[in-house]
Amino acid sequence: MTETSTHSAVPLRTADATIALRIAESALTVDGRTSLTDFRAWFTDCGTRNYTEVDRVPLDRLANWSADPVTGNIGHASGKFFVVEGLEITRPGHWVEHWEQPIINQPEIGILGIVVKEFDGVLHCLMQGKVEPGNCNGVQLSPTVQATRSNYTRVHKGKPVPYLDYFMDTKRHKVIADVLQSEQGSWFFQKRNRNMVVEVTEDVELLEDFCWLTLGQLHQLLREDDLVNMDARTVLSCLPFSGTDLATLLPATDRDAFTTSIMRSCTESEGAVHTTDEILSWITGARTRHDITANRVPLKGIDQWKHTDAGISHVTGRFFNVIGVDVRAGGREVLQWSQPMLEPSGDGLSAFLVKQFGGVLHALVHARVEPGYLDVVELAPTVQCTVDNYMHMPPSDRLPFLDALRTAPAERIRYDTMLSEEGGRFYHARTRYLVVETEEEVDLDDHPDHRWLPLHQLVGLLRHSHYVNVQARSLVACMHSLFGTRTAG
Amino acid sequence: MTETSTHSAVPLRTADATIALRIAESALTVDGRTSLTDFRAWFTDCGTRNYTEVDRVPLDRLANWSADPVTGNIGHASGKFFVVEGLEITRPGHWVEHWEQPIINQPEIGILGIVVKEFDGVLHCLMQGKVEPGNCNGVQLSPTVQATRSNYTRVHKGKPVPYLDYFMDTKRHKVIADVLQSEQGSWFFQKRNRNMVVEVTEDVELLEDFCWLTLGQLHQLLREDDLVNMDARTVLSCLPFSGTDLATLLPATDRDAFTTSIMRSCTESEGAVHTTDEILSWITGARTRHDITANRVPLKGIDQWKHTDAGISHVTGRFFNVIGVDVRAGGREVLQWSQPMLEPSGDGLSAFLVKQFGGVLHALVHARVEPGYLDVVELAPTVQCTVDNYMHMPPSDRLPFLDALRTAPAERIRYDTMLSEEGGRFYHARTRYLVVETEEEVDLDDHPDHRWLPLHQLVGLLRHSHYVNVQARSLVACMHSLFGTRTAG
Repeated sequence: MTETSTHSAVPLRTADATIALRIAESALTVDGRTSLTDFRAWFTDCGTRNYTEVDRVPLDRLANWSADPVTGNIGHASGKFFVVEGLEITRPGHWVEHWEQPIINQPEIGILGIVVKEFDGVLHCLMQGKVEPGNCNGVQLSPTVQATRSNYTRVHKGKPVPYLDYFMDTKRHKVIADVLQSEQGSWFFQKRNRNMVVEVTEDVELLEDFCWLTLGQLHQLLREDDLVNMDARTVLSCLPFSGTDLATLLPATDRDAFTTSIMRSCTESEGAVHTTDEILSWITGARTRHDITANRVPLKGIDQWKHTDAGISHVTGRFFNVIGVDVRAGGREVLQWSQPMLEPSGDGLSAFLVKQFGGVLHALVHARVEPGYLDVVELAPTVQCTVDNYMHMPPSDRLPFLDALRTAPAERIRYDTMLSEEGGRFYHARTRYLVVETEEEVDLDDHPDHRWLPLHQLVGLLRHSHYVNVQARSLVACMHSLFGTRTAG
Repeated sequence: MTETSTHSAVPLRTADATIALRIAESALTVDGRTSLTDFRAWFTDCGTRNYTEVDRVPLDRLANWSADPVTGNIGHASGKFFVVEGLEITRPGHWVEHWEQPIINQPEIGILGIVVKEFDGVLHCLMQGKVEPGNCNGVQLSPTVQATRSNYTRVHKGKPVPYLDYFMDTKRHKVIADVLQSEQGSWFFQKRNRNMVVEVTEDVELLEDFCWLTLGQLHQLLREDDLVNMDARTVLSCLPFSGTDLATLLPATDRDAFTTSIMRSCTESEGAVHTTDEILSWITGARTRHDITANRVPLKGIDQWKHTDAGISHVTGRFFNVIGVDVRAGGREVLQWSQPMLEPSGDGLSAFLVKQFGGVLHALVHARVEPGYLDVVELAPTVQCTVDNYMHMPPSDRLPFLDALRTAPAERIRYDTMLSEEGGRFYHARTRYLVVETEEEVDLDDHPDHRWLPLHQLVGLLRHSHYVNVQARSLVACMHSLFGTRTAG
């Protein structure tokens, strides 16, 4: 509709239907402005220019960080950044009804933003090669901007964040995605970041740690271990990657049954096993049914956790440790600092069981309670856990689908890559992201907290906060990476 | 799509496009199963059968309620229902940067549900005539079910809630709406209720305090003072009242320019001044920009509030009082009880400025911060306040649009009715709900927290939590009541 009233010249507008097609075009393109060969040379250079040296130190010897004498909470002298506090959780009826744990409280909303721009008619993403102290391998591929509020208000008096203005003042640009999304609800208390994708048509200066890549190229890189970082994955998952007739973009000779089922999964008109209204009602029911209370408590004296020179650990050695690190970084805006970090006790597993219904791929999502969520439940992978925490249990007591997924035969595995969680807060936190296809029936009556959703329904929910957790968002990005590519340029 | 795969007989489904048309049909129908004359006789009978006698008593003389000796928080001996606590709010940069206030903490999620059923092909709503101690006029029209969790788990050992099973076990029925929605964020701490509409095809026994009404009839009753209660209004606002070509349902002779602009406002394909993506980005920006911290604190000793035999009041006499009441009720499941209530210091005003763009009516909504919201900001009326709290200020310091709306000339007023807020917690809390049409330009650069939305965009947001506050939801229901009606049966 572009009709105008007699009283106003403001034209009425509807959603931009072309953006999904332009995203799909970029996904099909692997010969972008930068070749993947050139990318690798640039990425190696980034790793040479940018490095961190990290030393573990006792928490009570961190420069500018100290424990509050009354609460024991560990905070920065400026009062900014984040605080390590205690959290006391009560879940009546759950198999563990009560526990306490350390948690990172970082109430400020940061910005994770990707600038996109068309070159030769194809959207490219401006990606950054960035090191973080928690990365196991130095540099990883990051969004254009990855800035905490302390960063962008320059609490630590560093250099200005490059390209930040595209996200702080969007008036001259086209906002393609802009939504607050949660992060790890077992490690963060109500943490959210603003996930943004902004399309720019003006000239953009290319700084040396930045590189233009198509979505098709990013999708190839997503299949390499520890390369595309968590912040990049969550922003990519928020792209409106869902349109009509995407499958027609690619000649049939370039697709197999699985690629076609992914493309149809991205196509809203294909429908779904459950209507979106049914999914919304199921989420509402889960939020009403699950009873959880999470109260912030002093870190000092939380039950079952011990403080040593090595940090704060659970008496069983499971879950995670809070550790201290001294960081010396080259190529960053601040050259030396100390901070607490959270170190998981083992590698994570985030896995989707997927299945074709009517030729449309659906993922089995889990309505999962985590104490740090603002709204009780978010949609999570079919299985999300630190596997080692369950291996001491008899198989029958382990999480549903855990053993079937972690021991799936190779011919059923559609995606299997080790990826890192956010290296600014988490130390060597790696997760096996896994997608396993099944043809078996799953009786949802036995699994009231699981439902089958195609990608287009997940993408629809990702326009809003509080629906899809950070691990499931990574998996959405990983599944989009299985979208086809054109063999001929 | 109803194609099935070789592996599964589960058919794929898309949204039910007929429901919006059936809702519109019901809205156009004023001669339902019950005539409005019969309704009035039944409603008078309800008021005779059901009554409450309410006596104000000091808070320290409420049976089964007491103040915690340490915190002063006022709670029930069972630990259920709700607690009156203190809240300490910090809003850096706001014109009041810090304040404390009493707040009702009622973390349990209640159910507000309407059963709908077709009679002679027209949807009817099963409404209840219900008294609440805070109602200024006894009985009001309520949803089929209005149950706190304490109610439906029967903490106060009363009779079972009639029709509750339709909402507790929805498998055999069609769920038309099912979403958690917030309530007054200045009076409640993070309170939400589950708003549900369930369509039933089986026979439904009609109990004496219940009545079947079409939406068209409810819309007529919505224009009478203090008749349709808050809980009914919020559930009605969650109906998916938005479809295609609704205007074609009504002959042109039965509509004027305004009715047509309302019908087009309910029609998604008409578009809007801002795309939904732009509105979502604007909300994300408001949630990032507005800084608010709300911490629960002991009620005892909150700053600027005094405790007397009459209750807890602000030293200025503004805002609200916390009072105690003894209630004796006939026709309810429990015949005698005591409770604290919140009594506003004056009548409220909730007003939408509305304007036609391209013949499509848009409402000017306000991205409003309230301390009790889970997610910082929700969309509120153009103006929402207790008018008396502003009358001591010079006009230039009052809320934007306040004077223009409250003194609007009669020929610009499209809706103007006094309606009650929830009578179970609020004592004689009445709000003037007002819709005023303008032809004047509003410069949104001067009002960064206001945007124009047609009804179909508000209805789209109402499928989700955290978007539209309870006062704006009432106004959405009131604006839907301006949808046309057929003059000929």
